[in-house]
Amino acid sequence: MSVSACRADEKAAGPRLGAEPHEDGVDVAVAAARRLIGALLRAGDQSGADMAEIAAQLDAVTDRLTERAPTVRERLAVMWRGEGVTRHDPVTGPENALAPPLRLHGKDDGSVEGVVTLDLPYQGPPGHVHGGISALLLDHTLGMANHWSGPSGMTAELTLRYLRPTPLFEPLTVTARQVSVDGARIRTEGAISAGGRTCVTAEGLFIDKQLPRPS
Amino acid sequence: MSVSACRADEKAAGPRLGAEPHEDGVDVAVAAARRLIGALLRAGDQSGADMAEIAAQLDAVTDRLTERAPTVRERLAVMWRGEGVTRHDPVTGPENALAPPLRLHGKDDGSVEGVVTLDLPYQGPPGHVHGGISALLLDHTLGMANHWSGPSGMTAELTLRYLRPTPLFEPLTVTARQVSVDGARIRTEGAISAGGRTCVTAEGLFIDKQLPRPS
Repeated sequence: MSVSACRADEKAAGPRLGAEPHEDGVDVAVAAARRLIGALLRAGDQSGADMAEIAAQLDAVTDRLTERAPTVRERLAVMWRGEGVTRHDPVTGPENALAPPLRLHGKDDGSVEGVVTLDLPYQGPPGHVHGGISALLLDHTLGMANHWSGPSGMTAELTLRYLRPTPLFEPLTVTARQVSVDGARIRTEGAISAGGRTCVTAEGLFIDKQLPRPS
Repeated sequence: MSVSACRADEKAAGPRLGAEPHEDGVDVAVAAARRLIGALLRAGDQSGADMAEIAAQLDAVTDRLTERAPTVRERLAVMWRGEGVTRHDPVTGPENALAPPLRLHGKDDGSVEGVVTLDLPYQGPPGHVHGGISALLLDHTLGMANHWSGPSGMTAELTLRYLRPTPLFEPLTVTARQVSVDGARIRTEGAISAGGRTCVTAEGLFIDKQLPRPS
């Protein structure tokens, strides 16, 4: 797909929520780490590669990063400044190799939506998404729906209903919308669907408060 | 801690559930990939490292693995043979760099328990575990409690209650036990606690059926 086609798609989908990935800096190395996680799981012990040698190479990179890394405290302070908030989470964060990543867009009707295809690292039952991974995607997407359309806060209660197995290797649509706000109590709903069929639904109760940001 | 102390602990905790990590082969490279994910997030753009060079090195490893990897179909068939089942999941799997990994033990009273300390990749609110990550750990642990003590199956419904924020950087105890079996309907409960205080509870309804294994 050409860059202009991508841009047109983004426009149709509504503004992107969360951090834009950068074309340089750590995001590039994280994207490579994400490909590596998938390749390791795909290879298993069937590729004939020298895994001890690969481990040594990866450890050398880790050592290089660690040597000059800030302390955890310094890093937390920077992470939580400005855009930092959404750069590092395990669902959408371009700095987090755990994140598939899911790209969410805010829509005019107050809902949010994203499309993601998951591979072997996210597997639960054979060829299907782990139920806990669906919970992770939905918890995060419900939280982003709150950010997009009204007050937001921390998850107090989350109920997931698994209607049918969620497939790996095909596009999943993840949606959520805030349904009510009563004082500090926020109710939000969402779902994951594949090929137009709902696989998992989520209902969340959020409380309008935030933990202090580290400084 | 010495190896013998570890062994004594394992004995006290009950038999280990899930796959034992190997000291060679892909598990070693996956453990290194896991350290790398943490180091990238810890470094961010503050380490001064040449991230384009690091990305190129990681991509070279990925290419080497991919060249001789089995097809997805072949790989799925091997994954789901024998012990394969628990080698690759995103919570306990030694072949999956997404997994913290959590190590679960089966206890005489039918419950299961594990202790895990989570770092920056698992962050939601500042300095605390992402609510969706707690859901992922609990969904999996409830499933393992079913395997340990009775019939097991797929998650149909999961309700999480977040009582207080779950801290990063300190040991979390994750527990679960099967509470009832009524025909194909299995009810299971679990919790995550830190420093003796419960942070998150989970109630799950599971249905005693399995998806077919790929062959």
